[in-house]
This record gives sequence, C-alpha cells and structure tokens, in this order.
Amino acid sequence: MPEPDSNAPYNIALLGCGTVGGGVARLLLEQPQRLAARAGRPLVLRRVLVRDPGKPRDPVLPPQLLTTDLSAIVRDPEIHLAVEVAGGVDWARKVILDLLAAGKDVVTANKALLAEHGQEIFDTGRRHGRAVAFEASVGGGVPIIAALTQSLAANRIISLQGILNGTCNFILTGMSEHGRSYAEALADAQKHGYAEADPSLDVNGTDAAQKLAILAQIAFGVAVPVDQISCRGIANIQAADIRFARELGYTIKLLAEAWLDGNQLSLHVSPVLLRHLTPLAQVRDAFNAINVIGDAVGHTLYYGRGAGQMPTASAVTADIIDMAVGRAQRTFATLSLWSGKDNGVTLRSRETVRTRFYLRLLIQDRPGVLADVARLLANHGISISSVIQHEALEGHEGDTVPLVIVTHTAPTGSVLATLAEIDRMPSVTAPSVHFPMED
Amino acid sequence: MPEPDSNAPYNIALLGCGTVGGGVARLLLEQPQRLAARAGRPLVLRRVLVRDPGKPRDPVLPPQLLTTDLSAIVRDPEIHLAVEVAGGVDWARKVILDLLAAGKDVVTANKALLAEHGQEIFDTGRRHGRAVAFEASVGGGVPIIAALTQSLAANRIISLQGILNGTCNFILTGMSEHGRSYAEALADAQKHGYAEADPSLDVNGTDAAQKLAILAQIAFGVAVPVDQISCRGIANIQAADIRFARELGYTIKLLAEAWLDGNQLSLHVSPVLLRHLTPLAQVRDAFNAINVIGDAVGHTLYYGRGAGQMPTASAVTADIIDMAVGRAQRTFATLSLWSGKDNGVTLRSRETVRTRFYLRLLIQDRPGVLADVARLLANHGISISSVIQHEALEGHEGDTVPLVIVTHTAPTGSVLATLAEIDRMPSVTAPSVHFPMED
Repeated sequence: MPEPDSNAPYNIALLGCGTVGGGVARLLLEQPQRLAARAGRPLVLRRVLVRDPGKPRDPVLPPQLLTTDLSAIVRDPEIHLAVEVAGGVDWARKVILDLLAAGKDVVTANKALLAEHGQEIFDTGRRHGRAVAFEASVGGGVPIIAALTQSLAANRIISLQGILNGTCNFILTGMSEHGRSYAEALADAQKHGYAEADPSLDVNGTDAAQKLAILAQIAFGVAVPVDQISCRGIANIQAADIRFARELGYTIKLLAEAWLDGNQLSLHVSPVLLRHLTPLAQVRDAFNAINVIGDAVGHTLYYGRGAGQMPTASAVTADIIDMAVGRAQRTFATLSLWSGKDNGVTLRSRETVRTRFYLRLLIQDRPGVLADVARLLANHGISISSVIQHEALEGHEGDTVPLVIVTHTAPTGSVLATLAEIDRMPSVTAPSVHFPMED
Repeated sequence: MPEPDSNAPYNIALLGCGTVGGGVARLLLEQPQRLAARAGRPLVLRRVLVRDPGKPRDPVLPPQLLTTDLSAIVRDPEIHLAVEVAGGVDWARKVILDLLAAGKDVVTANKALLAEHGQEIFDTGRRHGRAVAFEASVGGGVPIIAALTQSLAANRIISLQGILNGTCNFILTGMSEHGRSYAEALADAQKHGYAEADPSLDVNGTDAAQKLAILAQIAFGVAVPVDQISCRGIANIQAADIRFARELGYTIKLLAEAWLDGNQLSLHVSPVLLRHLTPLAQVRDAFNAINVIGDAVGHTLYYGRGAGQMPTASAVTADIIDMAVGRAQRTFATLSLWSGKDNGVTLRSRETVRTRFYLRLLIQDRPGVLADVARLLANHGISISSVIQHEALEGHEGDTVPLVIVTHTAPTGSVLATLAEIDRMPSVTAPSVHFPMED
C-alpha cells in the first residue's frame, strides 16, 4: 500500500449510495479543491458500489464509477479506503472484514454493526495493520468520537449524557412546545422525514442504546452488549407527563447516560426529567447533544444535527480526510479500542443506582389514598420531595385524578418494588409511570 | 530527532509553571499510566523552566526537573517537545522561534502571541520541519481548534459566534440573573478569581478579539491584525440595558463573531442581544461556547470551561498527546495555517454590515421627542420594529426617561450616523447606547 502521508491521490470506494452515501459523493465530486486542501492530497472517488446502477441519483454519478461487483473493489490495489454507508449488520460485517483483510482502511457510519461486532472488526483491522474510523456512527455531525478519542484524551471520563436520537427529541419537542400528543408528534416527525414508517428502533431506545455502547467502549473501555443496557423508550410518555414536568420546572428528554463511580459503570437509556435551564434541556427538534464530564476538563457539551444527509456526510468525510492525512491510522493503532482487555470496570446493576424519581399515579379521588401511597413509600425508605395533586373539577369529585410525586434520591430497585406494590392498590386505577430526574 | 511514532518515551519540557503549567505538570506527574495509554508511549516531563526554583509549588516538582536556564532545554537533544505556558508576547516569541530552530515541536496556549506573530512562528516551524499546536489558546477546555481543523474539515465555514471570554460572561450572568450592577458583578468576578485585579483586556474585548483572530485564520484563512477587528467591551452596559433586553425577550452576551458572505468576511467583538432560547444565550457564568455553522454540517456548538487550571491543562495535554502520537505534526504540515497565502477573502468594513439594533436613549419626558427621534431614523431609512417607553413615575413627569428602540435590519454605518445626530438633539440628555441584536 502507498504510505498515507504521500501527496499522491487518495483513492476511495463508496459502499452504498443512499442518503448518506449520496452526501459523501456530493462532497467528493463537487468540492475536490476544498477537500484536497484539507487532506493535503486529492481525494478521488474511484468506485461506488450500488445495487441498481440504473437508478436515478442525485448527485449524478459518472457511470463508470458505479459497480455492483464488490470484488472489483476488494481486488483493486489502487483503492486505499472503503467507506461503508450501506447499513445493515450481517452484510456490512462480512464486507468490512474482507476489505480489511485485503488491505483497505475502512470508514463506517454503522452504529448497529460496531455495537454488535466492534471487537471482531477492530481485531481484524489490527491483524492486517489497517484502521477503522467511525465518527458518523454516533451523533451525526457532532464530533463526539473525536472529542473522546483526542480532545479529552488527558481526562478520565466521569460521565456521558447524550440526546442521541433526533427522532425522539423531535417528538418530545413537539409534545413540550406545541402541546401535541405522542401520536400527533410522531406523525409530524414522519411527515418531516425525521421518523421512519416503522419508528420502533428509534422510539424504543434501541438506536440510542447502540450509540451508548459505542461511547462506553471509547470513554470507559467497556464492551457492553446492547441488550444489557437498561433501555426504555418514549412511547409511554403522555402529554400529562410533559405538563406536570413543566409545572415542576423540568423538561423530559430521552437520554443515554453513563456514569462511572469508582470502577462501576452505570448505563441506561431512559426518558429523564431535566431542569429547564440545563443545557441539554434546551436541545430542541432533531438536534443531538452530548454532555461529557472529565476529571480535568470538567463539563463540556457538543451539539449539532444528529442525522440527515449532509451533517452525516460531513462526519464521514472528516474521517476520510483523517485517513488521507494519516491521523486516523495513528489513533486506531494507539487506542486499541474493542481490544477485549479487562480494565477492571464492571457494569452496575440498574437496581442499585440511586436517583430522584418522578412518579405519576392515577388514583381514586377519595380520602386516604395519598396517605396510603405515602405510607408505602415511607416503608421502603423513600422520602417525598414534592407532590402535585390538583383539585378535581367540580362535579368530578370521586373520579380518578392524577397524583404526581417527586422523590428524594433513592435506589432504583426500592422505587420499582414500591411501585409494584402501589400498582396493586385497589384505589390506584392504572399502572404507575416513573422517570428518573436530574438531581 | 526520533520519529514520533516510535514507542519510546516522549520527552517534554515545560516553559512556565504558573496556574496552567502547574496543571499540566500535575497531569504528567500524577497520571503517567493514563497518558501513556492514550499516547501509546510514556510521556516524560524532563525539564521545567521557572524564574524562581525556590518557590513553593503545587504539585511539588522533583527539584532536578527545575531549571532557570532556557539553553539547557534548547540544547537538550533528548527533548522532543516544548510546552509554552509562560505567557507574554516578546519573550515567548523569541523562545519559541529558538526552540523550533533547535528542532523541537511546540505546544502553546498563548493567544496574544499567535494573534500577533502567528505567521512568523508557523513559517519558522515549516522551515525547520517542526510543528506547533495551540488548542488551549482559544476556549480553554473547549476543543474548538480540533473541531475546525479536523472534525469540520469537509465544510466551508459560514459563521462563528463565540462566547470566548469567561470573565465577561460571568459578569453579564451576574447582572442578568442576580440583578447586580456592572461594578458589583465585576467585584464578584474578582472575588471568585475569574477577573484579574486589572481586568481591562478582558472587559474591553481585547482577549476575545485575539481569540477571534486565531479562529478567523483557521476557519477562513484570513490573517487579521487584532486592532483591525471592530471591538467593543462590556464596561458601558448598564443594569437598565439588561432589564430592557429581558423585557424584549433577549439576553446580552459578549460575542466574538465572524460571518462569511461571498468572499467578504465580517468580524467583530461586541455585546449582542440574543433571544433567550438561543443556545448561546443559555451559556452562564465563566463558561465559553462557540457556534459554528458549516455548509455541510449546519449548526454545531461546543461548550465548556474557557479558563481555569485543569480545563486549560486538559487542552494543553491533548496537544501533547497529539504530538506524541504524531497526529499534530500531520495536521500542521497539511493545513499550512498562517502561510500568508491570499485566498481571496477580504475583510468587510463594519459600516456596511446589516443587522438589527437595540438603541437606548435618555430623553426629556415631553411631547414630540419620540416623534423627532423616529423622524431622524426614518430620514436615514431605518425602520423601527418596537419601542419601549414606560410611563414616568408620578411626580417625575418632565424628567428624563429612557427610550428603547429596536430597529429592523439596517446598515451599521447608517445607524451610527443617525445616533450621532440623535446625540446632538437638545432633548437627548446622555450619549445613546446601541448593541446589535440577533435576527
């Protein structure tokens, strides 16, 4: 392979030319001078692997670039770098392993792939002396991977808190600021192209959990299977919760969080009540943002568009430039990510994590119910910070009313056990709702 | 020189051991394993240049590291990297030029030096095949230099807006949120160690302008002498302006801004009225934040502590690691910053920049004054968006009252010319105040 620090043209194959791939192709084809100046050498798009070469595309690609034949890329000795923006896990895994074995460096935007097969892919890269870069896999245009691998390298990371799913944030913003129901806000997200026809992996928190698994590897050296991350989505948030949160001075956001305490790492994805003035609470619409606290740098935050064609293409192309300059190879060789080494950090069971909680019950509006609920909480050692129970409307006394309780800090396990008991009370008429709250 | 990609120990000399230098020394001496893991090789603090070796220090440095003799560093062939955290312009310039000529790479946190002598220093580095890194010179712990040089490298930068001076932001937060006068808020900043005994370079905007000059070089390839940046500080902001801004839905922040329009770059440092919910308006106390808009990535924001021992040491040490890994040398060689090349971008005169304005006048409370002011504005083609003139207190009719006018977008030159005329009106009893407003 030519040395990456030469000034010779740097030859790139694009695997996939959908939304993100089209954006990368646009930058490579339409901004050659800009990119050559930033990379110190021409960046040449040499091949684009597609399923259907006849499909109309924007940008229009020179037909001789298009191929349906992966082996034409794997076997082309002139190609330095393969950029995987096709998505999917099994196909992408196989292809990337082949490309690394064939001596190509790889850029990928594939979070699901890295969350599931990070170690195999990185081991293969190391074995063949090749590198993998993946800035676009988390946070779209937000350079969170560069921040953690380079800019904050002097720090022990203490915590990460991210709004990592733009779809969920768009829906929650619609509920908070425009008074929409969950269903209305979801429909609006679909209309704007922020949510897929089947939005399950976004709204159930899986997408955010995959991204959190990648960040946990970089920041804490921990390889966590995604299904071991405690994960709750946004589908059970009701307009009433949004309103009560606001009344309490809070905003509900879907957060992916990691907290290190000694050598114990707590990871979860959950709706969380954040104080209105907290920077993350101000992140609106489809934007992403990640709070990172390091022991030296203190609190930092990174904000931008978490998805979309050109923001994601910006991140992919930054990786391409880092490869062409030769920086990404050094980062890859130095950091030994997904190396399988045990650094002593273990996962903490969610039950032992202490936090404040927002609880919402539907109770019968009659004497003694609040006393019974408060007694149960007290029996579990959970103290109450505040309560909201509004007067029932005239003529509706005796109906069901919502009761909102904010707890002081308590172990998650105790709160869940108490809620299980509360949900069995005859005067509690619907399953309780609970979300963690910012301290 | 040994190749930077070897696994051999990487030897560092620290020039200066004040607040920031002490923080860097602390990381190097107290976290050797962490830093070696991130750099792929041991980072060895080999020399610390100080004025007074007898002075008590925290952390305590092994006495054999201390030296008062710069030539012992310049001539030591084992030293790979010199880290300049002494400050001052003339001494630092001379020393860095000597060190580069002697074959050392250089990390510096010195914004005043780079703003004034960037080209000489970078040319010297290039001539001797050495590199300079300077993450800590702007934004303290906020990795804005890495974002612009690497993460956003695929973008044409369209605008930068930064809260780059923590002292000013602390003072403005104290005025906005605690109702303090400017003098009270400044005294509080001094008490907290956020302002020097002589705060002039902070509060008059010079510090922010130096940082803006550095960002303008990186983002737009423009070398701007600091004294050519239109620069206003915060010392003439009154508590009344803070209150009126709030009444209008705005917060006053000292911003350093750069906007590219075609090939014309507009640069200024000024108090600006930002809408309350704008992310920058939510940046409080001594924090810094920088908005960057790129043509591909869209809006991004970077936030963190802009000063202080460990946040700044975190940035300096990230540069040290980048040097030890060999990334910083590639960035330096590729980007050709301060190269003196003309890229066609020219500075736009402030007078031609169109923006909205907040104007505050003190006028006599009698009929016709508002009509006269409005007429003058209309004569200059400036239209009024809103006006605040509260009733005078009972018994004070005929006294002086403040008149606040928000204009629609207008050329800065026209607004200034109009204000000069307004200030000559007999019924206007004090010089007018004006600040740009977010659109």
